[in-house]
Amino acid sequence: MGKPLPVSPLSRPLPDLATVAGVRLSAVAAGIRYQGRTDLMLAEFTPGTIATGVYTKNACPGAPVQWCRRALTTPYARALLVNAGNANVFTGRAGDEACEDCASAVSELFDCPPQDVFLASTGVIGEKLPQDRIIAALPAARAALAEDNWEQAARAIMTTDTFPKAARRDVKIGDTPVRLQGIAKGSGMIAPDMATMLAYVATDAKLPQDVLQSLLASGCAQSFNAITVDSDTSTSDMLMLFATGQADNVTIDDVNDPALAEFTLALNDLLLELALLVVRDGEGATKLIRVAVTGAESNFSAHRIALAVANSPLVKTAVAGEDANWGRVVMAVGKSGEPADRDRLSVAIGGTWIARNGTVVEGYDETPVVAHMKGQDIEIAVDLGLDDGHARVWTCDLTHGYIDINGSYRS
Amino acid sequence: MGKPLPVSPLSRPLPDLATVAGVRLSAVAAGIRYQGRTDLMLAEFTPGTIATGVYTKNACPGAPVQWCRRALTTPYARALLVNAGNANVFTGRAGDEACEDCASAVSELFDCPPQDVFLASTGVIGEKLPQDRIIAALPAARAALAEDNWEQAARAIMTTDTFPKAARRDVKIGDTPVRLQGIAKGSGMIAPDMATMLAYVATDAKLPQDVLQSLLASGCAQSFNAITVDSDTSTSDMLMLFATGQADNVTIDDVNDPALAEFTLALNDLLLELALLVVRDGEGATKLIRVAVTGAESNFSAHRIALAVANSPLVKTAVAGEDANWGRVVMAVGKSGEPADRDRLSVAIGGTWIARNGTVVEGYDETPVVAHMKGQDIEIAVDLGLDDGHARVWTCDLTHGYIDINGSYRS
Repeated sequence: MGKPLPVSPLSRPLPDLATVAGVRLSAVAAGIRYQGRTDLMLAEFTPGTIATGVYTKNACPGAPVQWCRRALTTPYARALLVNAGNANVFTGRAGDEACEDCASAVSELFDCPPQDVFLASTGVIGEKLPQDRIIAALPAARAALAEDNWEQAARAIMTTDTFPKAARRDVKIGDTPVRLQGIAKGSGMIAPDMATMLAYVATDAKLPQDVLQSLLASGCAQSFNAITVDSDTSTSDMLMLFATGQADNVTIDDVNDPALAEFTLALNDLLLELALLVVRDGEGATKLIRVAVTGAESNFSAHRIALAVANSPLVKTAVAGEDANWGRVVMAVGKSGEPADRDRLSVAIGGTWIARNGTVVEGYDETPVVAHMKGQDIEIAVDLGLDDGHARVWTCDLTHGYIDINGSYRS
Repeated sequence: MGKPLPVSPLSRPLPDLATVAGVRLSAVAAGIRYQGRTDLMLAEFTPGTIATGVYTKNACPGAPVQWCRRALTTPYARALLVNAGNANVFTGRAGDEACEDCASAVSELFDCPPQDVFLASTGVIGEKLPQDRIIAALPAARAALAEDNWEQAARAIMTTDTFPKAARRDVKIGDTPVRLQGIAKGSGMIAPDMATMLAYVATDAKLPQDVLQSLLASGCAQSFNAITVDSDTSTSDMLMLFATGQADNVTIDDVNDPALAEFTLALNDLLLELALLVVRDGEGATKLIRVAVTGAESNFSAHRIALAVANSPLVKTAVAGEDANWGRVVMAVGKSGEPADRDRLSVAIGGTWIARNGTVVEGYDETPVVAHMKGQDIEIAVDLGLDDGHARVWTCDLTHGYIDINGSYRS
């Protein structure tokens, strides 16, 4: 499987994790592909837990993604099973059968319908999932379930992530304290295949599925859909939110209920924290880049322009080289295909406006920009000067580390 | 300006170049940015020469691109002036004035209207073009004009290209021998900014502008619009075709005239040769990759899928690592957003079908594929199994060399 990767210089320590009432977790070693580590995570949710999810838009998704989409047609979740080491993608009918077998085995453990079991797999593509090993490990996984196993769960779903990722928020709905806690795995895969992003958030809040789905979709748009490492879209990406309803909060029927405002902000904030942890563990990343676009014709247009800048290999290599190469930002804006006018375009790096209205600022002094480029957090701002559309996107730089990780042979 | 780059391992020697009746060229050192080399190319076309061109779709094009678009509203070309070292992009009103000054100076040399002068600049962005140095070098450039200076011209327009690029075809229109000869510069820029692609083809054939424009547009679609190095679109890309009319060929009014068939094939072939030379000099390239897509819903859809594969950093790094990682090809197909059905998708590398109809071929033996991956010419084929849409796209691998070249500081 190759040498372990050095921990990303942009890593963050795990926060102080707590328990979420109604959630028990475990992590075991099922021997799917990795040796000497856990590779199977099981979560049990108390009966009545509501599930919602957002899945990859890739047209060739893995069998577990298709399973989860179908399972979401009923609102309940009783369990979540995630394995690392094999993605169960492009495995044809055998892949679907593996999902059915795993969900059936978990449903027997918890005496629930199979559609209340959610599944995910991350790892190598095109190899048959060894579901017998997973099913054989289930009794041990059930026996190990405990409320305080969140860190273990975060570690079991890692592939070539260089650090475990989790976030927590304690807030109130009305007067009732509720908790949000989540884990994620990101975009680092050396020996296997691709940059799958998985994130799972649980809360003890009591909320209906339509409200949860609305919250998750809008939170995802500003977080996981606003990050990019290399523009590639995994076949297995998913983000799920589970609400156990153990908190005795007031009834909420409307996503715009003021009583939900604090919770909504906390969820958005937690999702962004998890998403940025994924970028911080981007393959070979040495700098976190924020691209802020203003003045675009619409928010949608601004988002597309920001992604064009964030996905540009020329911009990302310039940042890696600590080069304030704003010309490449102009190029990326132009190639986005979105409305832009050269003579109204302005570009700033690290808060210093380098170009205004289509030409370099008179007497531009590169000194503060050069200093900014030497830091770990790089801020690129683009103003289109057209209207009030705005968006923010995060990415990381493109370095030799990326080539090392992705150019090495699967073995 | 940094050390000279090593010549690409995919380089090709210059072909045996000839003259094109009605075209004289020269190359001089104007001291625009580079030292100790030529950086200004002048071409003189005989009066009556017809011009046509295809320009970058980047929404923030350089001033010379805008100049050429306007100049093409009349069909004639008397001269072409190209400088390396400064792109005259994002230079505001001063950039437009530089174009007007240069065109005016050239028009005086040849006693022609300024709109018969075509201009191009390639190099660093956002710095004012030193047009005084260019204009001061024009008398020497005119004095040096000669029919056999094609190689010198190909060298003068290089930025960090590691080898000069040219191609030639001798064919007939009806019974009349005609010649096509062209030069190009590609995607290598270390100290300056971005991967500008410039290509100029001349022929002694006598053809009307609408026929030339139609030939160039369709030839470009299958060549320069079917190559990608890093998905970034330069602000200065252009491809132009000049027809001097010195050959005494039959009159052609229709692009589908059978008498033009041989010429059309030769032009397409020459354009593809020049385009592949650009890919062969892609920054850090060690392998040339051809992505062939069949079975798509349309040719347009096939082209988009092929580009998604060719632009995928995960695919390109896998090829650099000689890893037949077909799972990444599946991922790239899926992310293209084009119609695809996992269970009808097939993938081949080097002519060996690895996956058929959504799953790995029974008894797949990696041996011939591993051998293929060690070569310089990598062939990836994708069949969608939906309809008969097809397309071919070429790219190069993504290596440490790309990071070295693009991550180094402008100096």
